[in-house]
Amino acid sequence: MDNEYPTLHGVGDMRMGKHPIPEIGPNDVLLKMSKVGICGSDLSLVYKGRLGDFNVPYPMGLCHEASGVVMQCGQKVMHLKIGDRVAVEPGGPCRICTFCKSGKYNNCPEACFHAGPSPTPGCLARYFKHTADLCFKLPDNVSQEEGAIIEPLAVGVHACRRAKVTLGSSVLICGAGPVGLVCLLSAKAMGATNILVTDIRENRLQTAKKMGAHSTLLVRNEMPEDLAKKVTKTMGCQPEITLECSGADDSIRMGIFATKSSGIAMLVGIGNPEVKLPIVNAAVREVDVMGVFRYINCYPIAIDMIAKGLIDVKPLITHRFKFEDYRKAFELFKSGEDGAIKCMISCD
Amino acid sequence: MDNEYPTLHGVGDMRMGKHPIPEIGPNDVLLKMSKVGICGSDLSLVYKGRLGDFNVPYPMGLCHEASGVVMQCGQKVMHLKIGDRVAVEPGGPCRICTFCKSGKYNNCPEACFHAGPSPTPGCLARYFKHTADLCFKLPDNVSQEEGAIIEPLAVGVHACRRAKVTLGSSVLICGAGPVGLVCLLSAKAMGATNILVTDIRENRLQTAKKMGAHSTLLVRNEMPEDLAKKVTKTMGCQPEITLECSGADDSIRMGIFATKSSGIAMLVGIGNPEVKLPIVNAAVREVDVMGVFRYINCYPIAIDMIAKGLIDVKPLITHRFKFEDYRKAFELFKSGEDGAIKCMISCD
Amino acid sequence: MDNEYPTLHGVGDMRMGKHPIPEIGPNDVLLKMSKVGICGSDLSLVYKGRLGDFNVPYPMGLCHEASGVVMQCGQKVMHLKIGDRVAVEPGGPCRICTFCKSGKYNNCPEACFHAGPSPTPGCLARYFKHTADLCFKLPDNVSQEEGAIIEPLAVGVHACRRAKVTLGSSVLICGAGPVGLVCLLSAKAMGATNILVTDIRENRLQTAKKMGAHSTLLVRNEMPEDLAKKVTKTMGCQPEITLECSGADDSIRMGIFATKSSGIAMLVGIGNPEVKLPIVNAAVREVDVMGVFRYINCYPIAIDMIAKGLIDVKPLITHRFKFEDYRKAFELFKSGEDGAIKCMISCD
Amino acid sequence: MDNEYPTLHGVGDMRMGKHPIPEIGPNDVLLKMSKVGICGSDLSLVYKGRLGDFNVPYPMGLCHEASGVVMQCGQKVMHLKIGDRVAVEPGGPCRICTFCKSGKYNNCPEACFHAGPSPTPGCLARYFKHTADLCFKLPDNVSQEEGAIIEPLAVGVHACRRAKVTLGSSVLICGAGPVGLVCLLSAKAMGATNILVTDIRENRLQTAKKMGAHSTLLVRNEMPEDLAKKVTKTMGCQPEITLECSGADDSIRMGIFATKSSGIAMLVGIGNPEVKLPIVNAAVREVDVMGVFRYINCYPIAIDMIAKGLIDVKPLITHRFKFEDYRKAFELFKSGEDGAIKCMISCD
Repeated sequence: MDNEYPTLHGVGDMRMGKHPIPEIGPNDVLLKMSKVGICGSDLSLVYKGRLGDFNVPYPMGLCHEASGVVMQCGQKVMHLKIGDRVAVEPGGPCRICTFCKSGKYNNCPEACFHAGPSPTPGCLARYFKHTADLCFKLPDNVSQEEGAIIEPLAVGVHACRRAKVTLGSSVLICGAGPVGLVCLLSAKAMGATNILVTDIRENRLQTAKKMGAHSTLLVRNEMPEDLAKKVTKTMGCQPEITLECSGADDSIRMGIFATKSSGIAMLVGIGNPEVKLPIVNAAVREVDVMGVFRYINCYPIAIDMIAKGLIDVKPLITHRFKFEDYRKAFELFKSGEDGAIKCMISCD
Repeated sequence: MDNEYPTLHGVGDMRMGKHPIPEIGPNDVLLKMSKVGICGSDLSLVYKGRLGDFNVPYPMGLCHEASGVVMQCGQKVMHLKIGDRVAVEPGGPCRICTFCKSGKYNNCPEACFHAGPSPTPGCLARYFKHTADLCFKLPDNVSQEEGAIIEPLAVGVHACRRAKVTLGSSVLICGAGPVGLVCLLSAKAMGATNILVTDIRENRLQTAKKMGAHSTLLVRNEMPEDLAKKVTKTMGCQPEITLECSGADDSIRMGIFATKSSGIAMLVGIGNPEVKLPIVNAAVREVDVMGVFRYINCYPIAIDMIAKGLIDVKPLITHRFKFEDYRKAFELFKSGEDGAIKCMISCD
Repeated sequence: MDNEYPTLHGVGDMRMGKHPIPEIGPNDVLLKMSKVGICGSDLSLVYKGRLGDFNVPYPMGLCHEASGVVMQCGQKVMHLKIGDRVAVEPGGPCRICTFCKSGKYNNCPEACFHAGPSPTPGCLARYFKHTADLCFKLPDNVSQEEGAIIEPLAVGVHACRRAKVTLGSSVLICGAGPVGLVCLLSAKAMGATNILVTDIRENRLQTAKKMGAHSTLLVRNEMPEDLAKKVTKTMGCQPEITLECSGADDSIRMGIFATKSSGIAMLVGIGNPEVKLPIVNAAVREVDVMGVFRYINCYPIAIDMIAKGLIDVKPLITHRFKFEDYRKAFELFKSGEDGAIKCMISCD
Repeated sequence: MDNEYPTLHGVGDMRMGKHPIPEIGPNDVLLKMSKVGICGSDLSLVYKGRLGDFNVPYPMGLCHEASGVVMQCGQKVMHLKIGDRVAVEPGGPCRICTFCKSGKYNNCPEACFHAGPSPTPGCLARYFKHTADLCFKLPDNVSQEEGAIIEPLAVGVHACRRAKVTLGSSVLICGAGPVGLVCLLSAKAMGATNILVTDIRENRLQTAKKMGAHSTLLVRNEMPEDLAKKVTKTMGCQPEITLECSGADDSIRMGIFATKSSGIAMLVGIGNPEVKLPIVNAAVREVDVMGVFRYINCYPIAIDMIAKGLIDVKPLITHRFKFEDYRKAFELFKSGEDGAIKCMISCD
């Protein structure tokens, strides 16, 4: 039995191949993959050949938002058994550096990540070998599609947690794309009672409203300072927390102006590597400008959010594709047409 | 126009009197009182003449869970106007000690509290003078009865906040009386996804279930260690946080045994001043044994919880009385009959 | 008996005048002023007519780093008596807003500050009326000159505390002026074991070394990324915390590149209102970019540092002037000549 | 070449044996042991056959405070080379549970510890195999004896860190034995400016004073409440933090009464498993009763404290023994005579 998965060999060059299934170690499991979602970072890899300002070594596997079913268990694996349905946390921290030992394994400089360099496939594959403690069992009432959403949802949980969203928080979310929407779901589940979502597209704001935003604001060509005032007026207060999910320069600037003194402006979306910021405004008002990298111990929480009915992620999944049609999925998501939020590929 | 309110002159000795309405200062408001709830501590004052191990100086006014309507505003009051409906935060910190200046005004040793020594009435009165910044405007969709519930709800918010309840938390709540129920509402609103409530009475557990407990456990004459194991079994895990709301010795002991390592056992209910605790068990597992005193800056959050529809407090209000029937209210609440959770007295 | 103090009526226009001594309220004290230091912000007021991008209304009093002796006490003042020597915390928070009530009174939007608009003098005066709880008694072994240093020292304490400097911290301090040096003293007293100080002037680095810097680095025209690498090489590691005290654009950029992942880049010095920052580098490495505004509850700590011999602030005081020579003090400090760090004016 | 080490086979039954030296894995090192200290817990193992209320399986190796020299390195070990002198962190967390992945590896329920069950020796041995990332290189100016002190010192660092000792803290330390003294050293290095140490023996208080206590208090047969008042009087304030290092019931009770509202009473010493505590007093004053278990990521800090000259641990080492005289070391330490604080055994 072979594994089958597409590998990226250069910008846009995805080739499907058959490969031997690897041996698993005592702490590993082998998964039969179920559902895999496409992330904006996958688009960047395929069509730009880079991720932010990180160089990407070819060839590499694709996609990291995934669910699967356990086919084999290593000898030391206790919490999983064959047949368990799982969500995949697609990393691999070193576990011995000071970051790992102080609970910040997302900052581990030695961590690997899937999608990653071959011969390891990305999660878009028939089979996938993974460290068992990074595979999280899905309860009966959480589907494989929802399981594949856990990864982006974990980004929202980590961002909200680091931004200290809690009961009664007022939150500005800039950008109503997939990242903005998972932040919205997470902030609501943490008890935020005043959430304003901004975007430059009205249809995205409609989705945000359906998913629970308390108010929305359509962004046009306004000065950041002016837009910040509109935010205050619409929310009835300055937001204690801004979750910037668009990556746009002016949106970041606006987010800083808008945030209440001693609040947090959290950069979740990634845009230009360098941005001119109103840093004295932020500093003297003690508005912390922070960022996030992936997530830490967020999978159980994200799964619980769905299992206990706190949130509904189904509206996020707008398109579905068969494994062999994966190119079409990339093309559609890239086009941004059809209101695509999350494109889901079936691996089985 | 006089003020009318009952004053406590000794154990059980409540006398209604007429008093001149006091002048208000520039930062004060005068309230026409609306609804006032009875707290267990009021019972202790009236029928035991003490509060925990605090001596209570007579004469004193009664009750501190209250809402009212603004009748007069001091010159410097900006955020309120005549006719505004408000919830009353019934304290008065000194604002200059190190506790006040470091955001822990509940620990201020100079703070006064209502109910308090005469001639200041308790909140159970026709009129009440109060510091304006401790009166919180109620939104249109929050009633005066809900306004009077804000005070106990703030206790729940403070307890959950100090116990670090957040999205995904597993929480054990010991005791399903009024304190346990406001903790339950607060924990749910903060995103706790696994809440077990215990009590010695089945009807109270039914209420807890209706108000959102994920599971309940009827407590009989079991050893604390054994009950702790039952908790783990019922919840499917050890709770990260225990909110002890019964004040019972064995329940406190059980809560410590039950709490997950590096978790928090929070004492919210007050019982015997001295209790034999399994302190080595707590210490070596780094389970922090903590307590709470009232609340800090919790009123806006508690109001928001109701206004934004996160919780429904109406099931807490089980009995209603006229102002002139206040003795009946105390008697009924003391009897514990009729499933009384919160008795509400109308002052208007 | 009159008060005598210089008032600023426009850029550079300081006029000495005689004024009636104000009445004190029940919570106030009247001080006979002792020593007053000049801050860079005073220079900005006098010679630029502004403070960062804040407009300054004329006329106004000058200087806010001060010590004095209690001459009169309001009736409610308990912790001070006539003759007590005190350090002056030169602010006046409103004490009723959410910032004040949550222990962040430095962010209070209603706070006044000394130096402030007339008729209140700045601290550079013969007499000064102040809120008693913001006057801190000096122990016998702390001099009036040291008392006047408490204010800048409190800035260092607040910056280090907010930056979470603790035992074993590695700290990069950019800029060895007065702000950099008080940060150095505070970081050392908190147990930082690896402190590198940078500056563009060799003589300032010599002072930093004398005051306890573990290493120093002379900054020339290097690219921020390259300088960040030099920092790592010199310290033997990346600093967990950067305290940017120069306000220079390139130094802020360098500080971000230099800081260890999941660390803090704290902006203490104030420079250009807008700066182009490597924000993706900071965000994905979870380096928090933060700022500070004055201090919160830092005076007792700063006094203790001196009283218990943890630090020696005397090397900071480089020049001394009589009250009537205050213009000379400003001129000398402005010239930057003679290695001026802190110029001290005697008011008695 | 064989390994030689004593093994405990029952209460008091220590037998020396020769054993084959084990193979090392890719992430391990083999150490030639240098110096090993005796801990109170070793005494409990040898003379009582238990540790607190933990059962101890025989046979087992002895001692866990140790330094050594690297003899062999596994293939993947990067940060050490043959000949490096190291301090040994004597644990072995699982690295995959939620405790390990959230930076609380001391609470890992799967962790092993040295001394531990045979055939693994304790650290009192000629040779010792250990995970490389838990061996910390000693700088040139830190001796092998100081290297063996790092373990108890790490306990002090962890306790003070968890108790939030920082610049300006007022700290009560109950008990001037080895644990109290390492807490004293750590608290001082973190900037505590008011430390009172209590003990029932005057000579121990003398040592505490020499090592930097600001004041001391000899404990006689006083009521805990009365002693707490003496503490306040001697310190000039209530301590914000109490580090209880004696394990005595009355001392724990006293520590709670003494601690300032909203402070922390930290149980570092271990005594009776159950203690009657004034829990309402603690709860309503929001004094957190906490404990500690070993340490997390404290070795680099503890090494730095010595290397950078913040503290002097040499006064802690009162007696020295040859390897073959290890029984004498245990006997002397048990006797408590001769003012023994730390007995050091040479393994080379």
